This record gives sequence, C-alpha cells and structure tokens, in this order.
Amino acid sequence: MKNQPLGGNEMPRFGGPGTFMRLPAAETAEGLDAAFIGIPMDIGASLRSGTRFGPRQIRAESTLMRPYNMWTKAAPFDGLQVADIGDVPINTFDLKDSVRRITTFYDDVLQHGAIPMTMGGDHTLSLPVLRSTHKKHGPVALIHVDAHADINDHMFGEQIAHGTPFRRAYEEGLIVPDKTYQIGLRGTGYEADDFDTARKWGFTVVHAEELWYKSCAPLMDTIRDEIGDMPVYLTFDIDSLDPACAPGTGTVEMGGLMTSQALEIVRGCKGLNLVGCDLVEVSPPFDPSGNTAVIAGNLLYEMLCVLPGVPYRD
Amino acid sequence: MKNQPLGGNEMPRFGGPGTFMRLPAAETAEGLDAAFIGIPMDIGASLRSGTRFGPRQIRAESTLMRPYNMWTKAAPFDGLQVADIGDVPINTFDLKDSVRRITTFYDDVLQHGAIPMTMGGDHTLSLPVLRSTHKKHGPVALIHVDAHADINDHMFGEQIAHGTPFRRAYEEGLIVPDKTYQIGLRGTGYEADDFDTARKWGFTVVHAEELWYKSCAPLMDTIRDEIGDMPVYLTFDIDSLDPACAPGTGTVEMGGLMTSQALEIVRGCKGLNLVGCDLVEVSPPFDPSGNTAVIAGNLLYEMLCVLPGVPYRD
Amino acid sequence: MKNQPLGGNEMPRFGGPGTFMRLPAAETAEGLDAAFIGIPMDIGASLRSGTRFGPRQIRAESTLMRPYNMWTKAAPFDGLQVADIGDVPINTFDLKDSVRRITTFYDDVLQHGAIPMTMGGDHTLSLPVLRSTHKKHGPVALIHVDAHADINDHMFGEQIAHGTPFRRAYEEGLIVPDKTYQIGLRGTGYEADDFDTARKWGFTVVHAEELWYKSCAPLMDTIRDEIGDMPVYLTFDIDSLDPACAPGTGTVEMGGLMTSQALEIVRGCKGLNLVGCDLVEVSPPFDPSGNTAVIAGNLLYEMLCVLPGVPYRD
Amino acid sequence: MKNQPLGGNEMPRFGGPGTFMRLPAAETAEGLDAAFIGIPMDIGASLRSGTRFGPRQIRAESTLMRPYNMWTKAAPFDGLQVADIGDVPINTFDLKDSVRRITTFYDDVLQHGAIPMTMGGDHTLSLPVLRSTHKKHGPVALIHVDAHADINDHMFGEQIAHGTPFRRAYEEGLIVPDKTYQIGLRGTGYEADDFDTARKWGFTVVHAEELWYKSCAPLMDTIRDEIGDMPVYLTFDIDSLDPACAPGTGTVEMGGLMTSQALEIVRGCKGLNLVGCDLVEVSPPFDPSGNTAVIAGNLLYEMLCVLPGVPYRD
Amino acid sequence: MKNQPLGGNEMPRFGGPGTFMRLPAAETAEGLDAAFIGIPMDIGASLRSGTRFGPRQIRAESTLMRPYNMWTKAAPFDGLQVADIGDVPINTFDLKDSVRRITTFYDDVLQHGAIPMTMGGDHTLSLPVLRSTHKKHGPVALIHVDAHADINDHMFGEQIAHGTPFRRAYEEGLIVPDKTYQIGLRGTGYEADDFDTARKWGFTVVHAEELWYKSCAPLMDTIRDEIGDMPVYLTFDIDSLDPACAPGTGTVEMGGLMTSQALEIVRGCKGLNLVGCDLVEVSPPFDPSGNTAVIAGNLLYEMLCVLPGVPYRD
Amino acid sequence: MKNQPLGGNEMPRFGGPGTFMRLPAAETAEGLDAAFIGIPMDIGASLRSGTRFGPRQIRAESTLMRPYNMWTKAAPFDGLQVADIGDVPINTFDLKDSVRRITTFYDDVLQHGAIPMTMGGDHTLSLPVLRSTHKKHGPVALIHVDAHADINDHMFGEQIAHGTPFRRAYEEGLIVPDKTYQIGLRGTGYEADDFDTARKWGFTVVHAEELWYKSCAPLMDTIRDEIGDMPVYLTFDIDSLDPACAPGTGTVEMGGLMTSQALEIVRGCKGLNLVGCDLVEVSPPFDPSGNTAVIAGNLLYEMLCVLPGVPYRD
Repeated sequence: MKNQPLGGNEMPRFGGPGTFMRLPAAETAEGLDAAFIGIPMDIGASLRSGTRFGPRQIRAESTLMRPYNMWTKAAPFDGLQVADIGDVPINTFDLKDSVRRITTFYDDVLQHGAIPMTMGGDHTLSLPVLRSTHKKHGPVALIHVDAHADINDHMFGEQIAHGTPFRRAYEEGLIVPDKTYQIGLRGTGYEADDFDTARKWGFTVVHAEELWYKSCAPLMDTIRDEIGDMPVYLTFDIDSLDPACAPGTGTVEMGGLMTSQALEIVRGCKGLNLVGCDLVEVSPPFDPSGNTAVIAGNLLYEMLCVLPGVPYRD
Repeated sequence: MKNQPLGGNEMPRFGGPGTFMRLPAAETAEGLDAAFIGIPMDIGASLRSGTRFGPRQIRAESTLMRPYNMWTKAAPFDGLQVADIGDVPINTFDLKDSVRRITTFYDDVLQHGAIPMTMGGDHTLSLPVLRSTHKKHGPVALIHVDAHADINDHMFGEQIAHGTPFRRAYEEGLIVPDKTYQIGLRGTGYEADDFDTARKWGFTVVHAEELWYKSCAPLMDTIRDEIGDMPVYLTFDIDSLDPACAPGTGTVEMGGLMTSQALEIVRGCKGLNLVGCDLVEVSPPFDPSGNTAVIAGNLLYEMLCVLPGVPYRD
Repeated sequence: MKNQPLGGNEMPRFGGPGTFMRLPAAETAEGLDAAFIGIPMDIGASLRSGTRFGPRQIRAESTLMRPYNMWTKAAPFDGLQVADIGDVPINTFDLKDSVRRITTFYDDVLQHGAIPMTMGGDHTLSLPVLRSTHKKHGPVALIHVDAHADINDHMFGEQIAHGTPFRRAYEEGLIVPDKTYQIGLRGTGYEADDFDTARKWGFTVVHAEELWYKSCAPLMDTIRDEIGDMPVYLTFDIDSLDPACAPGTGTVEMGGLMTSQALEIVRGCKGLNLVGCDLVEVSPPFDPSGNTAVIAGNLLYEMLCVLPGVPYRD
Repeated sequence: MKNQPLGGNEMPRFGGPGTFMRLPAAETAEGLDAAFIGIPMDIGASLRSGTRFGPRQIRAESTLMRPYNMWTKAAPFDGLQVADIGDVPINTFDLKDSVRRITTFYDDVLQHGAIPMTMGGDHTLSLPVLRSTHKKHGPVALIHVDAHADINDHMFGEQIAHGTPFRRAYEEGLIVPDKTYQIGLRGTGYEADDFDTARKWGFTVVHAEELWYKSCAPLMDTIRDEIGDMPVYLTFDIDSLDPACAPGTGTVEMGGLMTSQALEIVRGCKGLNLVGCDLVEVSPPFDPSGNTAVIAGNLLYEMLCVLPGVPYRD
Repeated sequence: MKNQPLGGNEMPRFGGPGTFMRLPAAETAEGLDAAFIGIPMDIGASLRSGTRFGPRQIRAESTLMRPYNMWTKAAPFDGLQVADIGDVPINTFDLKDSVRRITTFYDDVLQHGAIPMTMGGDHTLSLPVLRSTHKKHGPVALIHVDAHADINDHMFGEQIAHGTPFRRAYEEGLIVPDKTYQIGLRGTGYEADDFDTARKWGFTVVHAEELWYKSCAPLMDTIRDEIGDMPVYLTFDIDSLDPACAPGTGTVEMGGLMTSQALEIVRGCKGLNLVGCDLVEVSPPFDPSGNTAVIAGNLLYEMLCVLPGVPYRD
Repeated sequence: MKNQPLGGNEMPRFGGPGTFMRLPAAETAEGLDAAFIGIPMDIGASLRSGTRFGPRQIRAESTLMRPYNMWTKAAPFDGLQVADIGDVPINTFDLKDSVRRITTFYDDVLQHGAIPMTMGGDHTLSLPVLRSTHKKHGPVALIHVDAHADINDHMFGEQIAHGTPFRRAYEEGLIVPDKTYQIGLRGTGYEADDFDTARKWGFTVVHAEELWYKSCAPLMDTIRDEIGDMPVYLTFDIDSLDPACAPGTGTVEMGGLMTSQALEIVRGCKGLNLVGCDLVEVSPPFDPSGNTAVIAGNLLYEMLCVLPGVPYRD
C-alpha cells in the first residue's frame, strides 16, 4: 500500500508530524512518484518579505485535508507513492548561490523520476527548478498563474529576482514560448507594453480582466488542446488570487482570481503531462488567520490530483 | 410596543448592553416570538478551537445593525417580540453532558413557543437543538448550509462531535430525509462516496461547485416549492462561505459561497414555516478584523427577517 | 518632465519617502494638475474609529504601484503634474472646526487649479470638500460609491457626522440631484424608506443587490451618458466593497462590491469631467494585512488615470 | 445577600452577561455602594484612537476574575452592593457636549451615594467626573497614576482634551493641589519645565525613573499619611505601565511601571477615603491578545477591594 | 555520537523538520534518555482555548535554539540521547478518555527509562503524567510553577479539568505533600483560604508577591536542600509569568514572574533528581508575535540542561 | 533657528510627514550635525525577516515624541541641526552589494561632518557603517547592546551576515578591542566558549544575567571612565531587550534587559565622544501593536540627547 496521510481518526488534526498533509517524511525522492519539497526563501522578494516561512505554514495548515477529492473523485494516494522530502537548504545570505543550490537539489529529485511539488518561497525559485526540469525533459510547456508576468529584464540591476524568472527561462530555452500561458496578469507596470513583450515571444497572456465573473474551465479546455502531450510545468503564484482570497502575500494586486477560478485552472490541467508544479509567494506574517496557507495547501493537493497516473473513483 | 434594539442615536454603537443587536435581555423565552441564544462551545471541534467565543463576538459586532431591512423591507421588530435570553451553561469539560444540557435548555425555550435563534458554538449543537425541536414539531425539513456534510458515522471513535450531527439526526428520525438540503458542500473527504451516502438517504446535496458565479435564488425557489408548509429548521455553518468572506472559522475550505449567495439563501427562506435557526462555527481568534462575526450577526438578522409573522413595509 | 513616482529600481519599494506612490512632496498645490491630500480624521465615525491612520497607511502601501496602467494603458504621469501636498491639519478635538479647516485648505487647492485627490479619513470630509468644490465649479454631478446613503438628517442630534454629508450637500445645493448616483447601497436602516428619500430628491440609487454577479461597465456607460460634460465629483467609500475585499473599515456590510466591480466603476469614469475624487473610510487597525490600504491606493491611482488630460499609450 | 459576580461553576467564563465581572446590571446607581460605569470615548485622544472600545473589552476580559482577593484577603462583595450600570451615552461627534453629558450622568450616580468606578475611555473623562465629584465632596485629594502629567494648557488650541484635565481641575478648584500625587511621569515634552509647573502648584510629582527596580509600597505609605481622611479620587491611566505590560494604549512611553508596582499602588490606597476611581486609555485595537484589558479589569477589581467598607477575611 | 539538533549552518532556521529544536524524530522512547512529547489539548481549559496548538508552535519557534547554554555551560546533547517522539493521540471529544490515553502513552515512555519532557496543552495533562510517573517512581516531590494552585475540588462539577490536577495528585498519593512547592500563585479566588488548603496538606506556597523585584535563586537553594535526592517532577505553567512576558496563554494574572525569574527557577533545579518535566498552557491564537512559544521552548531547553547526567563545559 | 520636529499643536500626531519625529527631510547630510538615516534591509537575517520595514515603522511611530527630554533635561534641537536624510538604496537581491552601497552612502554623510543616526534594518549594517566611520575617525570604541555577540566567523559559510559584523570589525581593525563593550548577551550558542573568544580579543562581555534586577547606571559609569575621550560608536540591537519589552524582532532571547535599563545605558553615554549610533533589528510584522518601533524611536531620540554639543536646560 502506498504512503497515506495520517488521518484525523488516528491523531487529532492539530497534532502529528509537520509534513505536508502529515504524509511520511523521506530523505530523498527515491522510489517516489511525487515529492513535496519546501523552498523557504524570501530574499528574491522586492516588497514584503516573509515567504521564507511559507513552507512551514503551508504544511501546518495542510493537516485539514483528507485523502479523497469530493468533487473530482481523484484518489491520488491510491495510485502514487508520495512523501514530503523536506526543505532545500538555501543560502539565505546569497540569492545567486541559493539558485544554484536549488538546481542541485532538483537534479537529484528528477533523477529519481519523482515529480517535484514545490512549496515556496518567492517566485525566483521557479527558474532553478525549470533548469533542472529542462535537463530531464527538455523545453516544457508552461502554465503560469500570476498577477505579474515576472519577465523583467532585471530588478535593481539584478538578473535574478522574483520578477525575472520567466524572461530568464525564455532566454535559456527552458520553456516553449508558444506553449506558455500566463493567466491572471493585471495591475501597474513600468511600460505600457510590458505584457506585449511576452506576446511577441509567443506567450499567451490572459489578463485577469478577461476572466472576471466567469468560469476558467473554457480557457483550460483550449490550453489543454493546444499543449497536447508535451511535458508541462505548472507554476502558481498565490498573488494571482484576489487579495480577498489570499491576503498573505507580498505584492498584492486587486481584481484577481477567485478561489473557484483557481480550482478550475488546476483541475483543468487533468490530462496534461505534468512534470512539475510549484505554489509560491505565501507570506505568513501577512496572513493572520492562516487561510492563505490553507488555500495554498489545497491547491497543491489539487495539483497532485491531476498528475499523470492518479486514479479516479466513481 | 415590541422590544426594539437600542438605537445609535440613543447610545453610541460602541457602547450599550452586550446583547444581540442591543436588544433587551430576558431570563427565559416566556412571551417571546423569537429568542436569541448563545451556545459558547468548541469542544466538539476537530481542528481549530475558539468557537466558544463566537456568541460573545457576534453580539459585540451586531451593534451596527439597525431595525429595518433596506432590500427586503422586512421590519421584524414591528411584528415579533424578540429578546436575547443569554447563553446555555454548557459543561465545557464534557461534550456529552453539554449535549444533554442543550436539549434541556431548548425544551424550555420551545415549550414557551419561541423560535430559537442560536449563535454557536461548534456544529455539534445542532443535534441537541434538533432533538428538542423534534419533541415540539416532529420531524422537520432541514436546510443545511455548510462546506461539510457533517454525516460522519464517528470521529475518533465518538458518536458526538461537530462532524456527525446530521447522521445522528437522520438515524434518530429528527429530520425528513427527502426534505433535507445540504448546500455548499466541497473539499476533501475520506471516501469518494461520502456525499453519496446522504443522497441514498434522500438528502439533496448541492456542491459549492454547482453554485459558482451565479445566483442561489433559483435553488431556493425549488426548495421552497418542495418543502411547502412543513416545519423547517435552518442551520448555517459559516464555513459554507468562502474563506475570503469568513476567515474566522475552524475548518476552512476554499471555493465556497459568496456573501451575496448567503443572503440569497437566507432571504430565499421567506414563506417557509421556520421553527428554528442556527449560525455556527464562528471562531473569533482567527478573525482579527471581527468581520466574520459581523457577517454572522447579519445572517442571524436576515433569518429573523424571514420568520413567520414578520411584517414587510413597502 | 513631470514629477514621477520613485521607481523600484532606484530605491527598494520598502524604503523611500512616505508620500503617495513615493511622488515628490509639495508645500501647496501651485503648479499642479492633481494633488494628493490626506485628511487624517475619524471623529466623525459612528462605530469603529481608526480612519485617522488611513492616509498614512494608504501612502505606505502605495509604494508597490508603478506608473503605467497595464489594462487601460493610461500613463498619468506623462501628462499631468502631480504631487503629494501632505495632510490637512484638522482639529481632532472638534469635528465642526475640522470641517471648517478642510474647506479653507481646499479653497486654496482649488484656487491653484489642481484637482484634489483625497485620502480619508471618515466620510464627513466629503462635505467640506464639496463646499470648496462648489465655490469653484458650482453644483456638480456626484458619483457616490458606498454601502450607505449617508443622507441621515442627523446622527445623535448632530448635523455633521459621517452619515450625513450628502443630505447636507443636497440641502446646500452643492450637488445636482438628478446627476447624483449612489452605487452599492445595502444593509439595514432605521426606516424602510431611507433610500427612497434620495430617490425623491432625484438621486439614482443602485443597490448592491442589483449588481451581484455581473459587470458594472454597463451601469457606468449609462451614467456617463447622463452626466455628459458637467463637472463631476467622485467619492468612494471603501465600505462599498464586500468585507472580503476590504476588511479594514468601520461600518461593515456584507454582500458588497467585488474589487473587479470597483475597478470597472472607476475606470468607467473615463471621459467625465472629474473635478475632484476622494477615497474614504480605510481604518488600518482593522486591516492587519494592510491590503485594504493597498486597494485604496490602487483605486486612487485608477482615479488619477481617468482624470481629464491623461494620455493613453497603445 | 449582596450582588455577586456570576461564577465559573454556574456558567463557563466565556459565556454569560457582558457586564463587569458578570455582575448584575442595574439601570441606575440607586441602592448601590459602588457602580461600574463605562465611558466609551476616544475623541479626546491626540494620537491613537480606539479607547471607545475600552469598556466593552474590559468587561469581556473581566470574566476571569473570582470574588476574593487571594493576597489582600479582601472580600468586596461580602460588604458592598455593586452593579454595572452600563455606559454613558456620550455624543461621539462633539467632545464638549460629551463632557457635559458625563457630568450630568455622574451627578445622578453621586446623588445616589454610590462610588463611581469608571472604565474609560480617554483621559478627558476625568475632568467631568471630577466636576461631579466636587459638587458632592468638595475639593478632593488626587492620586494620578500616568506616564503624562495631563496639565497642558491646551492641545491644538482646545481647552478640553485628554492632555489637559488636571490643569482644568486645578484651575476650577476641584482638587487639593498639595494633596495631588502624580506617579509614573516620564518621556518627552514641549518644555523642560512641564512637570515643574505642577510642582509649583503644590502637586507631588514622582517620575517613573524614581521608581525603577523597587517597590511602590513605601511611596504609598507616605501618600496615605499625608492625605489622611480627606476624600480621595484615584485616576489610573493604563499608559503609566510599561508598554511591555500594557501594549494596548494610545500614547506609549517606555520605562514605565511594572504590573507589580501598579498592584502596590492600588493596594496601597487601602485605608483612604476613596470617593471615586477610574481606569482609562485602554485601546483594544492595539491589544491583540486582550491582556491590557485583562489588567485593566484586575486593577478596577483591586480598586474595589480598597474602597471604604470592604471586609477582609483572615 | 548522540542525536544533535539540526544546526543553522546546515539548514536555515526557518526550514527543516518540525520537531523540537529540529532534533531527530523517533517512534518510541526506546533508547532515549529524554523524550520530547506533545500533548495537543485544550478541552480541559476553563476560559480561553487554543492550547491544542501549543506543541506545534513551541516546536516551530524552537528552531532558534543552539545546543550549548552560554550562561550555565550545559551541553545536554553531549551526554544525553534525546529525540522528539511526537504527540499523544488524545481524544479531543472526551477529556476523561484523553486522560486515560495520556497515562497509557507515558507508561510506555517511562518503561523505556526515558525522562518525559512534555509540551502542553492545558494543565489537566499533569495528572495522567503523574499517574504514570508514580507507577515508575512512587510518590515524587513536585515543583509547580503557576499563577494558580490548580487544587480545586471540581470545576463545574467535574473532577478532571485544568484547575484540579494537584488536588487529585494529592488525594491519589502521587506527590509528597511536604515536598511540594507551588511558586508564583496570585490573583483572585472563590474562597479566601484557597491557598491555605494546600498549606494544610503540607505544600509550600510561594505567592508571586513574595518574589517581586528579586532573584528566585535563594528560594531554589532552599528547595533543593529540602528535596535532596528524592525523585522530582517539575511542572511549569506559562501563566506563572507576568502577562508582559507570556501573553499567549489562557488564564492571565497580572503581577507574575519575570523571564529572568523563570530561568532562575529552572536553572535552580540543577542537582535535583528530575524524573519528568512539563511546560503547559501556551495558547498560540493569543500570541501573535509567537514569543510566548519561543519562551516556552527555551524553558524546555533549560529543563533539559538540568536533567541528571548532563555534562557542563568550562 | 535649528530644524524642529513638527509639533502636535500644528498637525495632529497621526498626520504630517513620514520623517523621523516629523523633522524636515534633507537630500544630503550637508550642514547637519546629526542625520537620521534608514537602512531598510533584512537579507542578512538568519531567522525572521521583516526588518526591511523597520525604518518606515520607526518613523511612523516616532510622531509621538516631543522635543524636550523630561528626565535628563536635554534639548537636542536647541543645539544641533538635525534632519532625516532618507534611506540607503540597498540592493535587496544581493547582500554583499548592499554592504558596499551602505559604505558609499556613509562615506558621504561622514564627509559632511554629520553624526549618522541609523534606523535598521538587520545588524549586518553595522559593519559597513563602521568601515565608513573608520575612514573618518580611525578605530573607535564600541558600545554594543545586544542579546548576541554577533562574532560568528561565518554563517552558512558566509562572511557577511547579521551574526558576524563584530568579528569582521575586529579583524579589520575598525574597533578598539579593549574599548569594546558587549552588554546583554545571553541565550544559546554553538560552543561553550563563544563569548570567551571576544574576551580573549579584549572585549568586555556583560551577560544579561549579570544585570538582572538592577540599575545599569554603575556599569555605564565604569564604561565612560574607561573610554574617556576616544570616539565611540553605539550600536543597539533591539533584541537586547527582553521579548516582553520588544516583541517585534527576529531572534528572540528571554531574560533580557528592561526598558528602564535600556534608557540607563543610552543616557549613560552622556559625555562620551559619540561619532555614530544605530538601532537595529526592529521587525514590524512581528510587532502588532507597533510598540517595539515606538521604543526604538525613543531610544534613537535618547541617543540624540547624548550627542556632543546637546544643551541641557535646568
């Protein structure tokens, strides 16, 4: 039998181990189909810090979740071997070194054949994870849910920061531009054509404004059709959500996605060849109720539910 | 003249008595058409505690409300004699004894002919209230708004807890299964068919997913048609709302109802033969702004506005 | 070149001056097209206080914003000379004197030809600002976004308070009644016809209930058509928003506007002859994440983007 | 038998009525030896507001207290008839009118012979209370525990504000200058001789610095000796305490009293002819744990324990 | 080499496993000299709940600590084999059953010869732990640091609750009365002689008032002399500390111990034959900064430093 | 006349400019005797981040302070020309570059002859400030108030971090070892002799334990005697204070200094040849009441009061 989350009838939900969903901990990704990993980092953040505590709080709040998905009928732990393999030992005093350390860590995870499920941490981390992913899978399709395009050429003169990973990924050939989808973008920018640059590269940019008051399911139908069988990486910045839904984050933009839309986007990835997922930018010091972390944990669980090989019960 | 809430032109809204809407306090339900009652309890909660402070904070935040309903034109205090009769003295060291104490208390309220309007408190309390209700009214129709079905057979081996009341109510014949409506269910569970059990008993289960992006008024039209004149109990778990709307609760599930939908559901009960209402699971320690309690108070007021006998002004 | 907000590549967004968007400070409105002004006041508030800290927190949280509007393509700082001219020195021990002081201050701002962009502060402030506006522009059209009509005849016997400004403005002829639009009203009141009084005067009253689940763009199309070229004042009470979106305010009403609707309303003012704007009722002590102030700052920026003379980039 | 606080074995401490210590409520002070009264006011505050919620939170947190004083052996409810007579309906839109309303209210309380025990509210309230006290008792000795002297001639040009009451009281002859003791003063001021003015009038000024690291009992021995049988009013500003002990207040000064010293000061009033007491400046929005209100409630209880006529058990 | 806490130069302190001090986790106490154990329980609490989250937050905040004690020179991990063996699976719906479960769990721990170091949880837990301790060691001396005597005969009619454990322990012969020391008692009670009962049994009661402004080292010298070689149990209720020092707890009493005194008390146990220690009543929902848990973790570490067999480095 | 803080009788204390004490802002240090400077940085912090918001919150909370020191009679603005020259534009994505940028900034300040008064920011900043100071003044005496020695050789392999500045300063000859005083050290460490290393270099180490329950004035008398006329740098880490006094910081150690002791230490520097001061490690996200920043602002003011050339009024 596969690893199972510790259930609420064995240990009260406010007790038990500090792993994601109270899954077993593992030292490495060996033998795993999917591995939850924390990257406790905020030194790539340009405004509010605090995302260094994201993995810890996501794990703490993930204890509510039970193994089956009541709406989609997914039973991920029936089919996949999953564990929490802990945190990447970033160097919190040096962002560039941290980026190198993350790639080293993920190279090992991917070599074991596990799909990495990352709990951030600021969005800088997607670059080194995509570098490892590229080594294993070549260029990938990208579904990028975010309030921001994160394609700045630099921030404060730096190539590496939480506002630049997808320009770097584009430049380094880590992603397939015309299979890259940026969903939820909005707010203010330095130049009127900030989003247009990505369009010129071939990215599909979906403004939050285009999604107001409606289901995201049709959008996901289109994206699935276009991507087909290609390996796909899903990166979900919690600030894609409206601040009403996810107050605990660092660069807040009003007019964002509702939690129902977030669920539709993730559930809409069912059938894709997902090779990695991350959920970033949860900042616990700005989340007094803890609910942003609850939602982040749920989205990670929903990502798990749409990985290849997950059985569904009818 | 009937009891009136103390108005803001007589006493600033941040002062005055600590009763619901600053209504007069009463010792018993004698002579009342409706009685607000607190059940300060959290020992039935499986994750976050804190709902023991729910009644106090709901009362504190209820001071904003004025007597007339600007949209529905209801004028409840023109037609009903209403008071706040205080809290049930639960035994906070023994859940089973508390359940007995609640039934004893409600037997008295119902004997006086008052409709009980309950401020929770964890959801365990609906079971003893339904037991009293059954003594007075026989089996009742049930409108149950919640993120969770609360029909576990047991929790941690216990028959009585906040996740079991509606299985117990079904087993004990307190409710009419094919007149039982569970609205807003979602999230994760232990078994893929958790919700299906209720359907087999005859319950109507409405997933939150079925209600996204749309009005709940049509649903309520159907429910009213089906229930007809039968006595109805309305139980509203604040976690039915999306965590954006009601952060201060214990078992948070994303993708929930909006406050507009909550208003439509309660207002949609107009015309039903309501014999009792409760609003449960407000946990003030997780509600730093106090707004979850504001909303809970408003929903209780809206419930009052749809009780039989409330006059409407045009 | 016009004044520009200090950018994030020159100074980290968590540093720099404490002005709105880190714009240059100015002593007076001389030479400005638009002037950001704080009115740090809460002594007109009937329930929660704390709005005295509104201007400070709106400025602090406004540092995230960049100069261009990614959706509307507005580039306000290309065409307008804008600065932050600081706070009105209200007399916090005397509301009536504060009202006089505000008018004196705004008389000077308007004499310089600048459009005042006010950060509140409780809603009482709109009355003295409208008095100054009337001296300059005569009666104005009014777009009033709020949960409350704020047309009480008195509060606790007082003519001046945060619940009375628009009755006073009507009585004093400061606004054009049939060009006055109140959007988002809801909740409870003292009399069933509270909103009808305004309708009798000629105001257009749009209940929040009329706007649920849909875009506000059509409403704004109508309003623009009706107002035409007349000078318009826009007053935006943050409590018009649903408490999910704007928890940090003093008189909370559920069932309110979403942030997308707020953006549509403000963006829908493009083309109007706006002569003044305010954003009121942000109460930082009830806003632990700071996000209500983030949203308030964004709405003020969006108001700036629709002022006459703002260039748009395609 | 006298009124007793509702005990924790009759009703859990998180339930029950919202009165001070869950004492019976009373409409007036008739028949009472001591009356707890709230003055929910913050419009006299010069920096942080929020003290309007002080009485409500002090009452909420006072539920922990039991009737006997374990250290001093006082049994106040054995000897005194005590009740909570609610709040003064101040006019929150007009400070000067509020001051008049307070005096009217206290004239009635004092006419009934009850000793008023006031829960503030900002410190402005001590002036109107002293005016009533003077009508009944003539000039009184004053024990004034505070970080600030509160003897400004004016604040922002106003005679009435929370920084002026004791200059007004001195000028109006409400207090006996050479029987006036100001304890705990510290911090910054406008003039180097701010405290010396009071000394010239005859006040005894005890800087916080003079009390560091030692018991306040000897000081109280001296004060008791000097005051003798004269009627005494005790006014305790919670900001006299170090911010470590009382974070929830509006004008914070470091280097203040410890809670042990506060207890010694109040307990050191035993034997004095106390004719009134107040506890002011608790600001709940800045007191997230609620403990400042807990302490305020305890100090009010300790004041009750040293009123004339309280029996002590050995 | 013995188990070592994971160091900050191997993994940032905001990452790593969720165990106490990031020690290795163990399934049982087998082979351990000392075992950290969580008892996540608050259903024995009479006022504020939330202590169910105590163990989790103490562990989270314990990551700051390094292995050596800079003042006492203790090096506990040089001499003892220590691990975190997780939480007791209490039955959160039944306090009496939870008490039985705790004893069962501790019987096993003690059978392995490990000294249990307990993180609470409400104070009810000391009774079942003492029952297990008695089976192994017979009656023990007790050092009980607390604001409250916790010797009620019953609470709300119940024998088992967080205010009764030491009367039960006395009645059951689990402790040696004349070697029982209650330190820090204060506040209010039901009867003037509440503390005297314990004195009659032989307990030494040290009021907080007796310790103000001075070192607790002499007291501990006396206690050590009196206890000698007898097995000793140390129970430390965080509410013994002044609320300034430990805001995050449930039954707050002013005038308590300073953190320096707490350190002196624990360090003063060096040389005693400690057979078990607990730290109880940390309630994270009332501890917004997390510092109460930091202090709790430190005190547990200091307890570890004075266990028999700990080497000291000079 | 010198620059004066904006007074509360000209502008309410909750309004006005966002500078320290509402002093005038200046572009550079030219013409200033003392310059307040913010260094908004947390990327050198090893546990909690958030100190990047320290300067902003210290400024916000500094508005309470008035110009004269009531206890010491210092009138700093009578004798010194003081302004707030804003923030150092650190590179938040690169700690090493930030350190270079700080030195560049301070070289300029010191060249103008102003004494820098620094608001941190994490403690890493003292190294680059000392480097600039050394260029101007040569090796300086150092008064270092802190819970930690901050003399690690490295953290996570890095030479530059908030735990290493004083080893670097020692190695680089920036400070005079036998005129270096470390006050308040305590807690846990990696090696039993961590503090002894500093002693071997010649530093005087004063453990917090040596200062419990007593005045720090005698210590400061000794230090002043030993230092004499040598230039002195004062660095004050807010975590030297007990967490009761300063909850809002990142590496919390119990058993620390009281605020009275902090005042004595700073006031005890009167007469020294102070050439620079800093106050570091205020982390607003962990300071919900804002009081840690209040205290930080007060200590900076008290530092200003003891600078050479400050007049005292009798």
